[in-house]
Amino acid sequence: MATIFLYEIAGTAMLTLLGGGVVANVVLGKTKGNGGGWLLINFGWGLAVFAGVFIAYKSGGHINPAVTIGMLASGAAEYADGIPVTVGTTLSYLIATTIGGFLGGIGAWLAYRQHYDAEEDPAAILGSFSTGPEIRSRGWNLVTEIIATFVLVLVIQLFDNTPHEMGPLAVALLVVSIGASLGGPTGYAINPARDLGPRLAHAILPIKNKGTSDWGYAWVPVLGPFIGGALGGVTSIAF
Amino acid sequence: MATIFLYEIAGTAMLTLLGGGVVANVVLGKTKGNGGGWLLINFGWGLAVFAGVFIAYKSGGHINPAVTIGMLASGAAEYADGIPVTVGTTLSYLIATTIGGFLGGIGAWLAYRQHYDAEEDPAAILGSFSTGPEIRSRGWNLVTEIIATFVLVLVIQLFDNTPHEMGPLAVALLVVSIGASLGGPTGYAINPARDLGPRLAHAILPIKNKGTSDWGYAWVPVLGPFIGGALGGVTSIAF
Amino acid sequence: MATIFLYEIAGTAMLTLLGGGVVANVVLGKTKGNGGGWLLINFGWGLAVFAGVFIAYKSGGHINPAVTIGMLASGAAEYADGIPVTVGTTLSYLIATTIGGFLGGIGAWLAYRQHYDAEEDPAAILGSFSTGPEIRSRGWNLVTEIIATFVLVLVIQLFDNTPHEMGPLAVALLVVSIGASLGGPTGYAINPARDLGPRLAHAILPIKNKGTSDWGYAWVPVLGPFIGGALGGVTSIAF
Amino acid sequence: MATIFLYEIAGTAMLTLLGGGVVANVVLGKTKGNGGGWLLINFGWGLAVFAGVFIAYKSGGHINPAVTIGMLASGAAEYADGIPVTVGTTLSYLIATTIGGFLGGIGAWLAYRQHYDAEEDPAAILGSFSTGPEIRSRGWNLVTEIIATFVLVLVIQLFDNTPHEMGPLAVALLVVSIGASLGGPTGYAINPARDLGPRLAHAILPIKNKGTSDWGYAWVPVLGPFIGGALGGVTSIAF
Repeated sequence: MATIFLYEIAGTAMLTLLGGGVVANVVLGKTKGNGGGWLLINFGWGLAVFAGVFIAYKSGGHINPAVTIGMLASGAAEYADGIPVTVGTTLSYLIATTIGGFLGGIGAWLAYRQHYDAEEDPAAILGSFSTGPEIRSRGWNLVTEIIATFVLVLVIQLFDNTPHEMGPLAVALLVVSIGASLGGPTGYAINPARDLGPRLAHAILPIKNKGTSDWGYAWVPVLGPFIGGALGGVTSIAF
Repeated sequence: MATIFLYEIAGTAMLTLLGGGVVANVVLGKTKGNGGGWLLINFGWGLAVFAGVFIAYKSGGHINPAVTIGMLASGAAEYADGIPVTVGTTLSYLIATTIGGFLGGIGAWLAYRQHYDAEEDPAAILGSFSTGPEIRSRGWNLVTEIIATFVLVLVIQLFDNTPHEMGPLAVALLVVSIGASLGGPTGYAINPARDLGPRLAHAILPIKNKGTSDWGYAWVPVLGPFIGGALGGVTSIAF
Repeated sequence: MATIFLYEIAGTAMLTLLGGGVVANVVLGKTKGNGGGWLLINFGWGLAVFAGVFIAYKSGGHINPAVTIGMLASGAAEYADGIPVTVGTTLSYLIATTIGGFLGGIGAWLAYRQHYDAEEDPAAILGSFSTGPEIRSRGWNLVTEIIATFVLVLVIQLFDNTPHEMGPLAVALLVVSIGASLGGPTGYAINPARDLGPRLAHAILPIKNKGTSDWGYAWVPVLGPFIGGALGGVTSIAF
Repeated sequence: MATIFLYEIAGTAMLTLLGGGVVANVVLGKTKGNGGGWLLINFGWGLAVFAGVFIAYKSGGHINPAVTIGMLASGAAEYADGIPVTVGTTLSYLIATTIGGFLGGIGAWLAYRQHYDAEEDPAAILGSFSTGPEIRSRGWNLVTEIIATFVLVLVIQLFDNTPHEMGPLAVALLVVSIGASLGGPTGYAINPARDLGPRLAHAILPIKNKGTSDWGYAWVPVLGPFIGGALGGVTSIAF
């Protein structure tokens, strides 16, 4: 379990440090990447997964509770070499990734500290921590997150059936894909820890001009990925 | 044949879910990727192929009737390990991919439901399902689709002659290339199922403000890819 | 020699079909990629090399006389498996790639036929066939082409010294790099056949509103890459 | 030591030639990539590392003193096959990369000579050589450089723990990631030689309209990467 905690906290912190960072770069004022566009965000998040998976190599590189739940739903015996699927290990993945997500959110804030201080738009500030929908409709936003996470978990489960030597690049490109294709309505949380962890950081950090942490929406990017991940894991059994 | 149907339906549905999704993201209003540009669409479609090929691994990952026809024209003995080239298997690939294309189109519509409801431009709506030319000229549009699909099928047939361990990334990058380079006039269907399947979905779905499904053009992105794919397959024999 | 001609003509035709295509897509009016930006052009040309190298696999995938000259200068014994370095094979590579470049330029014109007919800017038309400098200064333009081709040939010569399984993706990414970094002043011919072949096509094709083929500049993107390639080949001996 | 000097000078010169080049392309006037955006710069620098690592293959492809210091801090026995960690080899890496960075800066200036001559904005000129912050605050700028270099060195140290055959593409994509995600405030030096070398070139070269070389900031992109690299190296011991 110490393995899970060390590697998943560190890997998910790397994920939200780099993922939060790219959004901060695009949406906060006076940055070099300001207004850099959606493809920049997509590559930023995809490569954030790339780096995070290299960090969390010993615990299987979940860095996402939806992946954990997907493996559970698929009937996997192990989450990684030597880590059996149990209630304890499952909860460890869920807790560790959320802690990691929280810490990475703080890291991104430190890296962009001056830009957060200068930012006057609360929506830009929150958007660099956690996701929010462009058209608020919790039901349909949930559907979008379910579909996007279903794609993520199903394809990850099938990676090993086709020979390649891309390593973590495969999942990185899959995340670029999901962001480009399915991220338009809700900003593709597709990962409860990636959304909840930084949202907690947003709630706690002393950021000038920050507004609400939008807890009324916070359950959507948690529940949607859990449902989508479970469906993806179950579906993978048929393939 | 059950293998063909399961894997090609699922793989092609993944293709048009992600491919339709990226166009919806760029052309529909109020999305996060709105106006995101052609390269975003190119990467979105290329990586949609990436994901689709991983899904359809057991049936050879055609997810495109032009690839099937190309293999037929090249004199291949098998469409995938254990799947011989026969009239029955050929028709199975053609039907399965079209069904998959249809289902993926519905999936993209569900993911972007609120944005479809809010969209007032029928051309944007149709454009996220199926291709259409920028300058309508069925003859020259056909030429463009023939050339683009010829490139696709010829290069795919030659992938195994050069050592690499990219797996599905090779075809994904080839599709990025074709989109960037040859997609300008017609939007690069290069796949009858990718165009006809979602066009059927467009015709059936109850979308506000949708206009015609443009059936007068629909034969171009079917016939062109079939001709180009057959030419690519025949040409590959010489290499 | 038949091998050289078949594979290098076809491979270089693929290169300039896709490479000319992406520039046509960005600079010609009414295309879907119009105004798509420099990175789109860089990926388009990089992946054009990717496809071309897969086509020309049996002749070593030169598709560029500067690569041939670089190998000659490096003291290589063979241009590819079973193809010795001789005056005859060297000339075959040079002639075949130029023919291929010419044919690919015609192919791109066919794919974008309607857009060429509608285009009124002669500079845009020529720019989709051949390179031209932003600030005309033949001496410095030559320097830029020498540096860029030196990088191309030197790094290609060193690819095999570092283990990887990227296959043609390595050279594709190198070409993306050179375009992004050194293409700004002259449009990075870095390949005499890529420039001269399509320029001949431009001179011959009956394109409305086409202007001069700018033969006064045509020697720069031929001589520069030859010099740079030779320097790159010689330099590689030291590594 | 001759190996270190030859390979690290050449590799780092390649790095700053291509890296300086892409910034010149985006920020200098009248280039083809002018205004090409942050993602273009990120890919440009990432692929500059790609090329540089292929050049410096025999000395381990450091091309960055922060990587050297990180390996030292991690307790590595060798910097590359046959190159032991000693005071002499450590200093050789530091000096060679700085010389290389200087030479590459001159190379980029030669490639863009006409555009430098025509440029009237001193900030654009300096920006194509060395980094500078968007919001000047040496303390927080240092924090950003420390975090970004920490990520670089830590993830590089862990590359070998996950199987893949990407070779230098892995570090290239990591640098794309860091640029996209953490480059917004300071322009991601993450490499003392990449910043100091070209700054020396800027100070010496006879460029019209060049202003100050901003030596008051120059210590930040040197000290920050050294600290971040050392922390990354030490942290990697725990993984």
